[in-house]
Amino acid sequence: MIMKAKFEYTGIRVTDVQKSVDFYTKVLGMKILGRHKMEQTKGETVGLSSQDGGFVLELNHYDEGSPYSTEYTVGEGLDHLGFKVDDLDAALKEAQSSGYKTILEIKTDGSRYAYIEDPNGIWIELY
Amino acid sequence: MIMKAKFEYTGIRVTDVQKSVDFYTKVLGMKILGRHKMEQTKGETVGLSSQDGGFVLELNHYDEGSPYSTEYTVGEGLDHLGFKVDDLDAALKEAQSSGYKTILEIKTDGSRYAYIEDPNGIWIELY
Repeated sequence: MIMKAKFEYTGIRVTDVQKSVDFYTKVLGMKILGRHKMEQTKGETVGLSSQDGGFVLELNHYDEGSPYSTEYTVGEGLDHLGFKVDDLDAALKEAQSSGYKTILEIKTDGSRYAYIEDPNGIWIELY
Repeated sequence: MIMKAKFEYTGIRVTDVQKSVDFYTKVLGMKILGRHKMEQTKGETVGLSSQDGGFVLELNHYDEGSPYSTEYTVGEGLDHLGFKVDDLDAALKEAQSSGYKTILEIKTDGSRYAYIEDPNGIWIELY
């Protein structure tokens, strides 16, 4: 029997909650759904979604002393987070003006997309 | 001006496409939306979503010789992927029978959730 499971959110780990909240809300225009401290893990989570709803991005931070407060390597597990934009050039310009420059741009026959890095070095695809 | 961007998918990187496809389709019951080879990056992507639709998980693999085929460390960038299940005990039992044992279980006043690891060591939250 196959499990009935619904993919509902993606949790990334961040080293500085406020810096990441600023990036995802001010640069990518997401809104905060909730912000919670968790005693059990000595952690803090912030739920975010795009303005028109959709999928949830959860920021996870573990305070010093938490068993999960391990050294941070961004790693390859998360390849990138994909954000659809109406106007790629305008979006890249806005990101650039906030200090997030384009690190890679790819053009294929039918598509064009580009990447910026979030404050933790996580790749953000804009397409 | 704040960018109008919509969070549309999460791309994880996998070391063995077929192993990961098997895990996400056979253990977590997702369906394949598409599978593409990309000449430009010498990569392969597989789009997946839960049976009833919803958010897209993209598996990314880079063949040997691709500039993106770097050494794989799962890292902390991706904290976990969240999957909602109807019956947590049944889901954990099914995962266990497929060889994916529970690595952490957390109970709070109002909730209970648990984690298994995907073939690359990415934490999967079931709740």
